[in-house]
Amino acid sequence: MSNPFFKNEGPFEASLLCQILNIDSNIVSKNILDIKDLFTAEENDLSFFHSKKYKNIAKKTRASFCITSDNLTSYLPDSCQPLIVKNVLVSTSKVTQKFYPSSINDNYDNSVNNITETNFSEKVNHGKNVLIGKNVSIGNNCLIGHNTIIEQNVSIANNCSIGSNVIIRNTLIKDNVKVLDNCVIGKHGFGFFPIKDNNLRYPHIGIVIIEDNCEIGCSSTIDRGSMSNTVIGKNTYLDNQIHIAHNVKIGQNSIIAGQVGIAGSSIIGNNVKIGGQAGISGHLKIGNNVEIAGGSGVIKDIPDNAKVMGYPAKNIRQFLKENR
Amino acid sequence: MSNPFFKNEGPFEASLLCQILNIDSNIVSKNILDIKDLFTAEENDLSFFHSKKYKNIAKKTRASFCITSDNLTSYLPDSCQPLIVKNVLVSTSKVTQKFYPSSINDNYDNSVNNITETNFSEKVNHGKNVLIGKNVSIGNNCLIGHNTIIEQNVSIANNCSIGSNVIIRNTLIKDNVKVLDNCVIGKHGFGFFPIKDNNLRYPHIGIVIIEDNCEIGCSSTIDRGSMSNTVIGKNTYLDNQIHIAHNVKIGQNSIIAGQVGIAGSSIIGNNVKIGGQAGISGHLKIGNNVEIAGGSGVIKDIPDNAKVMGYPAKNIRQFLKENR
Amino acid sequence: MSNPFFKNEGPFEASLLCQILNIDSNIVSKNILDIKDLFTAEENDLSFFHSKKYKNIAKKTRASFCITSDNLTSYLPDSCQPLIVKNVLVSTSKVTQKFYPSSINDNYDNSVNNITETNFSEKVNHGKNVLIGKNVSIGNNCLIGHNTIIEQNVSIANNCSIGSNVIIRNTLIKDNVKVLDNCVIGKHGFGFFPIKDNNLRYPHIGIVIIEDNCEIGCSSTIDRGSMSNTVIGKNTYLDNQIHIAHNVKIGQNSIIAGQVGIAGSSIIGNNVKIGGQAGISGHLKIGNNVEIAGGSGVIKDIPDNAKVMGYPAKNIRQFLKENR
Repeated sequence: MSNPFFKNEGPFEASLLCQILNIDSNIVSKNILDIKDLFTAEENDLSFFHSKKYKNIAKKTRASFCITSDNLTSYLPDSCQPLIVKNVLVSTSKVTQKFYPSSINDNYDNSVNNITETNFSEKVNHGKNVLIGKNVSIGNNCLIGHNTIIEQNVSIANNCSIGSNVIIRNTLIKDNVKVLDNCVIGKHGFGFFPIKDNNLRYPHIGIVIIEDNCEIGCSSTIDRGSMSNTVIGKNTYLDNQIHIAHNVKIGQNSIIAGQVGIAGSSIIGNNVKIGGQAGISGHLKIGNNVEIAGGSGVIKDIPDNAKVMGYPAKNIRQFLKENR
Repeated sequence: MSNPFFKNEGPFEASLLCQILNIDSNIVSKNILDIKDLFTAEENDLSFFHSKKYKNIAKKTRASFCITSDNLTSYLPDSCQPLIVKNVLVSTSKVTQKFYPSSINDNYDNSVNNITETNFSEKVNHGKNVLIGKNVSIGNNCLIGHNTIIEQNVSIANNCSIGSNVIIRNTLIKDNVKVLDNCVIGKHGFGFFPIKDNNLRYPHIGIVIIEDNCEIGCSSTIDRGSMSNTVIGKNTYLDNQIHIAHNVKIGQNSIIAGQVGIAGSSIIGNNVKIGGQAGISGHLKIGNNVEIAGGSGVIKDIPDNAKVMGYPAKNIRQFLKENR
Repeated sequence: MSNPFFKNEGPFEASLLCQILNIDSNIVSKNILDIKDLFTAEENDLSFFHSKKYKNIAKKTRASFCITSDNLTSYLPDSCQPLIVKNVLVSTSKVTQKFYPSSINDNYDNSVNNITETNFSEKVNHGKNVLIGKNVSIGNNCLIGHNTIIEQNVSIANNCSIGSNVIIRNTLIKDNVKVLDNCVIGKHGFGFFPIKDNNLRYPHIGIVIIEDNCEIGCSSTIDRGSMSNTVIGKNTYLDNQIHIAHNVKIGQNSIIAGQVGIAGSSIIGNNVKIGGQAGISGHLKIGNNVEIAGGSGVIKDIPDNAKVMGYPAKNIRQFLKENR
């Protein structure tokens, strides 16, 4: 994933990272450039490998180093030196935080200025009390409503209309997008390691991407990704009070009604229709042209063109027959 | 529907409207005054007729013109000249937009001023940073909280308490109403024609009406109607995070618990109790004194006095018996 | 319940309270200090007793007076003089309002000042347009985001991060708590007596307590208690768009996913996991280490260590077996 927003503070010496991981290692002296997943990592990058599920990708990784556990090291190629730890994900989190320290901290953005004190004052048709952070770009013919906060790391293209009381950060918005009042977009996801008395948040270095012609309804929340991005495809419309969790990817021309929730990392196809209050569990794949009835609870993958209803969601005809 | 808020930009020459509709018509030269539904249209008005379902109303319409499709023209009276198009609703949308251009545009309201610069400064007990749009009236003994935006076309009667961070537009609020923090009221509904790569929004010329003694909970959203109004009846209480879609009409003395969603155009009776997170599909009729258990999904009409539960919602005794 | 926030306007003469209750009583002249529940009331306090369910507590109450109905007086000890009324709860509400008049009024707080005009200006790392009410304390090393309103009766301890557009009142926040953007915390619950054409709100003299290390997701609402408190236990994390009703108590180290709703007075244990969009009815007891699948509807108590799913929620294995 190319990352336009979170600054990589690396490279770091391999020995420094071993120190962070509490590894007593005779490691070669080498600069590590970045931390990436097994597939995208290149030479001199560090990766992580925590489950046998990924063994086929692990075998071919180009990463020079890999955080992993004792029982998985045999899958790694000789070119990749394992850094053996007890908890791969917690260790990965610690190192990611070293490379991308600003990705774990979601405090309010104190870099903002009132838009009237910025270069956008004339260019953007804006309401009262609009705040703009660092590293923001806004195209032509855009509107931004009252009390809206465009925090750092936001790019808004042309002909966009952002409502009032909106908060956006770490987000790419393409052309002709409408974001209605009271939305919060680009916040870190609900991802952390549960630890008794003091959970450990892991970094979210992904962003939110909202493609051309989308509309995002009032009071919706769209979280940014952890190691990948959250994406709303072209011309997809979201109604009010929708929650899109981190890493979710929604295709084009989809229609999602009020109060729907989509849990982390699920992938939704093109031309999908989701009725009000439906919920979709995490890590699922919903095909193209799928229709999900309002109020349904989807807990497994759904193939292209299926129409489902119920909890757990099943074929709509079957559901209605069983529930006369 | 009488419309106190959206300004009719008509009349327009019939030939101009034909041009908008791409109709090559030998139409009489005539001023068309307004666009209305088949029932309320008068002489010199334009109406629309898109489904056989409405044939009995169509037969008696007083409209002078009617947007319709080839196969429906025979139902119209001789006094009504058909304007034949391929897609009746899309065409109706285009013409409505001509009559009511401001009804399709839900950008932030740039007509607002800080309340301290308006005549309401002394009359209304208000918080900091309150903004007031054009065409707003506020009665006696009202409170408006901090950062609240009363956009254009809002009438608030007497003894009302509006919370902080609220956004209201195109809304009639009667006496003794409480609107709690963070609500968004009067935004257009989730109504549009799905068109590949570029959906077409249709106009929403309805308003929201909140009758005497209602309470609207925090972070709720109530959308305004498209061709009719969204209505919350007298002394009806809504809890937090409720979504009321466009054209919904709720009766008097009803009680609706947190996170309920009511889809477009459904009609809810008097003395109805709806438990938390229940969902009601669109275009349904829920009778008086109905009780809907929390979490239920209602997908068909419910007669007076019924108690229902489940998804799909059925008689509560039957549901509990089947689900021990 | 000790109450740090709502000011007791008593003591009041017993005869005055009888007058409020429309009781024609030969009552002894005595100052009544406070109104409390049967268990915590002391000598010279007034209590209330409306259901046989509480007869064993009633028998031992130390209250000097008790609002009750004719058929329950026999359970009260001789030291406690009954004040017999038709509707115990409505009468209790009226008297509570006399003792705690500010607990029924949830209008916006007009005591606030811009933080830059307060003593917190230097001490707190704050955004723009932050408002601070009366009777607020804030510890060391705290951040408060833009447009956030800390209304009266809020105590924030050390190392807390409050987001932007947040509204908090009547709330105790302990150390290391994060409250994300757009939350509304401490508002009165959805509690009132339904009365035709004009419901009667009862007082909410409880507060919200958020223990150490909690995180509250964006756009969540947490209502304060009526006669007890609403509590979020240590290191419990809430995702976005969650609604926690009045008097709910959640234990430690629990994890609650997006759009969950918990109805009034339910008690949730420690180490509980609740999936997205699940709903929990009011007045339930959910044990420790319970797991509730996303989308479930819980309508009865759940013992420790159970895993449940469905609506109504049942053993997860049974549910999945029945719903293949």
